[in-house]
Amino acid sequence: MSLSVKNTVDSSRGPDPKTSITTERANNQKWDPVLMNHFLEGSKEASELNRTMYQQMERDPILRANPHYYDLGKEEERELTALRIDRISQYLESDTPAEYNRRASLISVFDPQLNTRIGVNLGLFLGCIRGNGTPEQLKFWSASKETKILKHIYGCFAMTELAHGSNVAGLETTATFDKENDQFIINTPHIGATKWWIGGAAHSATHTACYARLLVDGKDYGVKTFIVPLRDSNHKLMPGITVGDIGAKMGRDGIDNGWIQFSNVKVPRFFMLQKFCKVSREGDVVLPPLEQLSYSALLGGRVTMVLDSYRVGARFSTIALRYAIGRRQFKSGKNELETQLLDYPLHQRRLLPFLALTYLVSCGAMKLEKTYDSVLDGLDEAVEKNDMKVISKSIKEMKSLFIDSASLKSTCTWLAADLIDQSRQACGGHGYSGYNGFGKAYNDWVVQCTWEGDNNVLAMSVGKPLIRSIDEILNKDKKASGSISFLNNAKQYLNEDNVLKSFEDVNDLKKVLLSIEILIIRLCKDSLDTIKQNGGQYEIVSGSMVTISKLKAHHYLLNEFLIRTEAADASLKPFLTLIARLYSASIVLDKFSGDFLTYSVVSPKFMGKINQEYIPKLCLEVRPLVINYTDSFQQPDMALNAPIGNFNGDIYENYFGVVKQENNPFNYKAPYSAALESMLNRPSLSDRQRGERSDSVKDILSK
Amino acid sequence: MSLSVKNTVDSSRGPDPKTSITTERANNQKWDPVLMNHFLEGSKEASELNRTMYQQMERDPILRANPHYYDLGKEEERELTALRIDRISQYLESDTPAEYNRRASLISVFDPQLNTRIGVNLGLFLGCIRGNGTPEQLKFWSASKETKILKHIYGCFAMTELAHGSNVAGLETTATFDKENDQFIINTPHIGATKWWIGGAAHSATHTACYARLLVDGKDYGVKTFIVPLRDSNHKLMPGITVGDIGAKMGRDGIDNGWIQFSNVKVPRFFMLQKFCKVSREGDVVLPPLEQLSYSALLGGRVTMVLDSYRVGARFSTIALRYAIGRRQFKSGKNELETQLLDYPLHQRRLLPFLALTYLVSCGAMKLEKTYDSVLDGLDEAVEKNDMKVISKSIKEMKSLFIDSASLKSTCTWLAADLIDQSRQACGGHGYSGYNGFGKAYNDWVVQCTWEGDNNVLAMSVGKPLIRSIDEILNKDKKASGSISFLNNAKQYLNEDNVLKSFEDVNDLKKVLLSIEILIIRLCKDSLDTIKQNGGQYEIVSGSMVTISKLKAHHYLLNEFLIRTEAADASLKPFLTLIARLYSASIVLDKFSGDFLTYSVVSPKFMGKINQEYIPKLCLEVRPLVINYTDSFQQPDMALNAPIGNFNGDIYENYFGVVKQENNPFNYKAPYSAALESMLNRPSLSDRQRGERSDSVKDILSK
Repeated sequence: MSLSVKNTVDSSRGPDPKTSITTERANNQKWDPVLMNHFLEGSKEASELNRTMYQQMERDPILRANPHYYDLGKEEERELTALRIDRISQYLESDTPAEYNRRASLISVFDPQLNTRIGVNLGLFLGCIRGNGTPEQLKFWSASKETKILKHIYGCFAMTELAHGSNVAGLETTATFDKENDQFIINTPHIGATKWWIGGAAHSATHTACYARLLVDGKDYGVKTFIVPLRDSNHKLMPGITVGDIGAKMGRDGIDNGWIQFSNVKVPRFFMLQKFCKVSREGDVVLPPLEQLSYSALLGGRVTMVLDSYRVGARFSTIALRYAIGRRQFKSGKNELETQLLDYPLHQRRLLPFLALTYLVSCGAMKLEKTYDSVLDGLDEAVEKNDMKVISKSIKEMKSLFIDSASLKSTCTWLAADLIDQSRQACGGHGYSGYNGFGKAYNDWVVQCTWEGDNNVLAMSVGKPLIRSIDEILNKDKKASGSISFLNNAKQYLNEDNVLKSFEDVNDLKKVLLSIEILIIRLCKDSLDTIKQNGGQYEIVSGSMVTISKLKAHHYLLNEFLIRTEAADASLKPFLTLIARLYSASIVLDKFSGDFLTYSVVSPKFMGKINQEYIPKLCLEVRPLVINYTDSFQQPDMALNAPIGNFNGDIYENYFGVVKQENNPFNYKAPYSAALESMLNRPSLSDRQRGERSDSVKDILSK
Repeated sequence: MSLSVKNTVDSSRGPDPKTSITTERANNQKWDPVLMNHFLEGSKEASELNRTMYQQMERDPILRANPHYYDLGKEEERELTALRIDRISQYLESDTPAEYNRRASLISVFDPQLNTRIGVNLGLFLGCIRGNGTPEQLKFWSASKETKILKHIYGCFAMTELAHGSNVAGLETTATFDKENDQFIINTPHIGATKWWIGGAAHSATHTACYARLLVDGKDYGVKTFIVPLRDSNHKLMPGITVGDIGAKMGRDGIDNGWIQFSNVKVPRFFMLQKFCKVSREGDVVLPPLEQLSYSALLGGRVTMVLDSYRVGARFSTIALRYAIGRRQFKSGKNELETQLLDYPLHQRRLLPFLALTYLVSCGAMKLEKTYDSVLDGLDEAVEKNDMKVISKSIKEMKSLFIDSASLKSTCTWLAADLIDQSRQACGGHGYSGYNGFGKAYNDWVVQCTWEGDNNVLAMSVGKPLIRSIDEILNKDKKASGSISFLNNAKQYLNEDNVLKSFEDVNDLKKVLLSIEILIIRLCKDSLDTIKQNGGQYEIVSGSMVTISKLKAHHYLLNEFLIRTEAADASLKPFLTLIARLYSASIVLDKFSGDFLTYSVVSPKFMGKINQEYIPKLCLEVRPLVINYTDSFQQPDMALNAPIGNFNGDIYENYFGVVKQENNPFNYKAPYSAALESMLNRPSLSDRQRGERSDSVKDILSK
């Protein structure tokens, strides 16, 4: 049923965004977008694997993204997610782990909650066992039980409690060793220790990896991990297990987050994960040689979130920028057509820096992923060999990875949230429509700033060691290593000269990289002074610690991008350099202008020029290439799932089509119409008061 | 049914946030929060009226806010909203307009979509008639038809089209005068001219105020306004009217936004609103003496949004700060208890500036509301007297009001969005729970940055006249008037001296006010130079125009707050000054540090001190008073509708209680559980492939 003007008789010519986009695409093919995608995805093979997998999804009746997704309520979302998990379990039976990870990463673009709901099992539950259990324990729970293909058992990750999130060491659930029966008794001592936010606990999980305080003979050995069954093979709750649904959330309603209370639940001693920590039959406790080793379960998630930041950035940059090319508003001068939104300098200034950011994040994410894999493999190998020298080298690498992943996870997830928000605002009212995806994506996204390491807590965990390093370098003649080794040049850069002085300087991205290093050094030094004036209290400069962490992340991104650009195909290089310049000038120099000025890395006069001349000029250079930059992300319409952002650019027809498909215009009366109609047609107030307050009644009742 | 540990046997002492909050409240009563509320609301009477109205709402079975609100789907939200509109219609029959406005303002705190859905009728539809219709037309549609008490007819506001939002003058719906039949023919010429986002069109509205191009004898007279009936008294669509539901949105799903297409719909000539523009029986057109006069319909909404920014800021500051007092995380030193979140300097730095902002916005909002009323009354009087001298004075005031309301609407709605977001993040995972209100409030809120004047477009409309004024003052010896008259001192302040140099300077808020003026002047002058270098193109500095607009808003807020503080009760003054200092240092100086430094209003060294010393010190001073500052907003638990923010501070019990009430733990199996269970218990892949790929089959099929 079509109840619109279109396809009948239009009495005058409507807008034609399709032609705008098609023309720009034809005229601005300065590079091959497929080749650029090889660069963005790290290799030709990776890029082609994406295409194959997207095609599978497009054709899969259950996995396929579609606009109706935006009309689902919580219960429907959960059901759809469960059906999709079932579907994924079939792919899992033949995917290699690398293939599955890629599949999951691509699904995250359009259905992040699906990926999370599976990831709780494959990533967190199994990750916890991998990190804390023996190889045999891992093999049993993962392979023998077939959990890894979502069979027989489904794990969840019971870390967070109602009253404890960031402070994992302060968790209050107890695991008391019952020597007589060779078992642990898991208990929730009070409401505050209720496990909270546990993804999968409400409906899906059969087991959980439970974080609980190990108590042996009255002694508290701190928080360890235990496998606790929640439901039997009939999916009925085990005795002593109480679970409930957490209910409504800001986003990701497809995940059945729940709470769990344990009422003296008994599990055999061998359900404890004991790679590093062991309790013997007699109750002797062996503690891990290095406590840090057991904290790797959350690291993988952080790495993934940086990659997610790239993909979600690509999605919404594509949507908002295609719209900005097709949409016109206000005529200027004698032009027949109104001006394309993207021809407005402010619109460029709002969106193009985020486009540039997305390019930079792609390279950083790939690098971080590789480093993560190699560090963890190295650690496993070292632990297996039990060689303390190699272990201690691994731990050094792990510490560097902690800093890099923490600064990148927090910085990139914050920026991606800004990107979605700014892109939405740049699409005006149509950005607020459910069908263009911004709202749902934002709501689903922002939890990434909170979970698996709150962004502010993570940022402080980066700022603190950097400041401490500066102290050691300046005052204790020590050296920093890994990705913060640039701090070793601190002495040289503490003086007050401006580093960036000319357009030539900012065009030289190695100089910009150096300027970030210098700013970090000075900010660390100044913070150190403040700390010392305040009796060694680091927290007094926590604001600066967050800034240091963000700058550290940008240093990582720019550094890696420059390395990758050097090795890139010659046809791409100029356009990679251009986009990196825009990123540096806007996302780094302009955004942190207060800091660059305070610490005299840039002079006030020149900062004014960066703001009023340099950035607008770069935006103008990028402007005609935008369609090619966004096409290079190679995200199909299905994954974008936003009619104003479709490849063909037929914004209004696509969008109106979706709205009518999802909301049949035949239903012009609401189900609740009777309430409205009876209100409008209600009798007068006097009648409804039965005339009891009229003058005639007054006469009667006053007598 | 209670299936939790609480009320049974707790095996150890749980967290006790209640005592933390109660103790702080008892120990920090430095002023009477009720008296402070008189200040915030503008008067004792206003404050007391709020209390009365909140009490009415708390006891009203239909209007009462409750946690179940967060579990409603779109259809349920719409139905509830319709029931609440019906309820409000009863209050409206006895409210004075001022009382109703207050009621609406308070409802906006916890159910903004309800207020909008009514406001489309009472605010926009009737506002359009008031602004563009004759007094007789207003009387007919508003009073005779009883629309103003939501009776007989329900109006909507058909301005925006699918392809035109900000550019109102470019709307394409046509109203062609049919002289023969003395009527207008309203038509949608093509898909782009479809009326879009029209609140109430999908289900509620019986009439619309339609913006359409007046065409008489082939001549286009530009966009005028017409009343067009949509539905008859049986609520059936009139012939020629097509409406549809816009469907899913990021927020405010309780509003039935729709689209409308007109297929040669005929309305009598006298349905045109003709205060300023008239078409005679013969087709002679009288145009308005001053086009600006007809653009006042959206002004009221902007004023309201500033007031909303105050109330929503008060709501989420209260929730996040009470939580930050009750919540503890990480032990430090030998303390028995963990540290209260609000004792962390970073937590203070994140939340307290927004608390301060909320205090400042309150005074600015009250002032803007008063100015709006007096300017519009003045204009009505002037138009009635038809005295061009008085009219032109009114227009001058109106222009000033345009600048003030545009800069405040855009700046305050952006900041309020930040405030909600930052407050949510500061509550960690519990901020992401649906039941603490952040998610829904954010989604409902952010449309304020887009509708009734896109924030960026509004900000540019402020920046431009200010830059032009500077040009006139410096180069044409003209004077600025109204709230931008400080620009007249431009010459004096163009030199390069730092204005704020010491803590004494920043403590002197009049000096800070002056520093904002100087920054605006210099930024305008620098932008003017850039514009002149670029052939008079204003758009080249649009980024700076947005900054100028924000600074203008802060100037207004600080100026009014200082005036109000001077007249405040002596017991409040020191605490008002303290909060204004924190606002100035953080929301103004720190946030715009790049600009203050670039234009040498503050020196780099001193900016470093503001950041690392002054703001942390102010935060520490405010810290013990926070409970009293937030209690002074006097928002009842019902309106907060967030269990972690309740007055009694019993965070965990309240929150857990709501979660269990809304999600019965008895339902530990999902309705879709069968799908999950059959996945987990599925036969092996080989079985599901019917054994067709086994080695034995290979032997058979390979022969």
